Amino acid sequence: MDQTISLVLFSGTDDKLQSAAVMTAGAAALGKPVHIFLQYWALDAFRADRLELDHGLAPEAGPAGRAAVEALGEAGQEPWYRTLRQAKELGGVEIQACSLSMDLLRIAPDDLDPLVDGVEGVAAFWMAAGDGQVVFI
Amino acid sequence: MDQTISLVLFSGTDDKLQSAAVMTAGAAALGKPVHIFLQYWALDAFRADRLELDHGLAPEAGPAGRAAVEALGEAGQEPWYRTLRQAKELGGVEIQACSLSMDLLRIAPDDLDPLVDGVEGVAAFWMAAGDGQVVFI
Amino acid sequence: MDQTISLVLFSGTDDKLQSAAVMTAGAAALGKPVHIFLQYWALDAFRADRLELDHGLAPEAGPAGRAAVEALGEAGQEPWYRTLRQAKELGGVEIQACSLSMDLLRIAPDDLDPLVDGVEGVAAFWMAAGDGQVVFI
Repeated sequence: MDQTISLVLFSGTDDKLQSAAVMTAGAAALGKPVHIFLQYWALDAFRADRLELDHGLAPEAGPAGRAAVEALGEAGQEPWYRTLRQAKELGGVEIQACSLSMDLLRIAPDDLDPLVDGVEGVAAFWMAAGDGQVVFI
Repeated sequence: MDQTISLVLFSGTDDKLQSAAVMTAGAAALGKPVHIFLQYWALDAFRADRLELDHGLAPEAGPAGRAAVEALGEAGQEPWYRTLRQAKELGGVEIQACSLSMDLLRIAPDDLDPLVDGVEGVAAFWMAAGDGQVVFI
Repeated sequence: MDQTISLVLFSGTDDKLQSAAVMTAGAAALGKPVHIFLQYWALDAFRADRLELDHGLAPEAGPAGRAAVEALGEAGQEPWYRTLRQAKELGGVEIQACSLSMDLLRIAPDDLDPLVDGVEGVAAFWMAAGDGQVVFI
């Protein structure tokens, strides 16, 4: 069986979340297990009442980048959270919130979107990662 | 043979591009194959007509960081794209554009600098990565 | 024995440094060796006279994120450099400065906090990384 791919999501901007969602969907389509660990501003974006908000873009996007992202959205591109939902339906995708970031942002488990499967600590993250790939986004 | 090192380049600022170029050159010098996958603002920086422009720095660089980067450029440091060209001449370095980011930014293959070898999807990226290291920059 | 986890620290904001410190401490607690390689703005934050300064947060943090980080600090959360010191006391954690970034920022070894064990080049970094995990933060 393939080793698990571990993605640490730190950044909370829509472009990085979209990149992470697409990488996850591609891995899931190949049958690779993906373990996502949500920290800081990425975790904040998974609050149920913030998931669908505009989370901005990386600073270097600029007005042209912003226009490109908006044009693709209007042309029907799925937002990142729908891409992630579809990837989870394929199976093998697990999303865990970092317990320290939960404390930092004063988030309770019930505040999170159902996309998130649970809360775990950093040690549990490393144990799940084993010797597999770890990607910080 | 060494496993391929896969670098996902997402950020389009000159400091991160320089870091990626130097990491690539160091790996190539050791004979390690490197597979670069260009997304979002990093891909935008590889347009033939933008390669040599100023792409800014990470926000935390500040005026002192900007001055340091400029001083080193004036002292003769190679810009990131020349370092990448040299790394490609060593062999074992392949640069692919992410097909989804090509659509997003409405880039045609002919718009890209010859540094870029082709366009591929996320599934092809993961297949090429195999069990090797994956680094998101 | 576990393979070494290699962390390339590029970003110099307190949130990313904190994330890196916590990931390091978690790995060290599990007995995993961690090799940290300091580049650019992360290296700048390890100057002895800047270590304890405010290094800002990622742009998407916003005022609410800033308030959350400050509240946790006032509640007694260790700053990132103390977490790293504790991780080093557990053993197996080595911190090296990238020689190219030392040149860029005109830093001499004596300018660095004792947390930093030495200076090395990119090739030495890749050789130390071997086939282990490489994470760019």
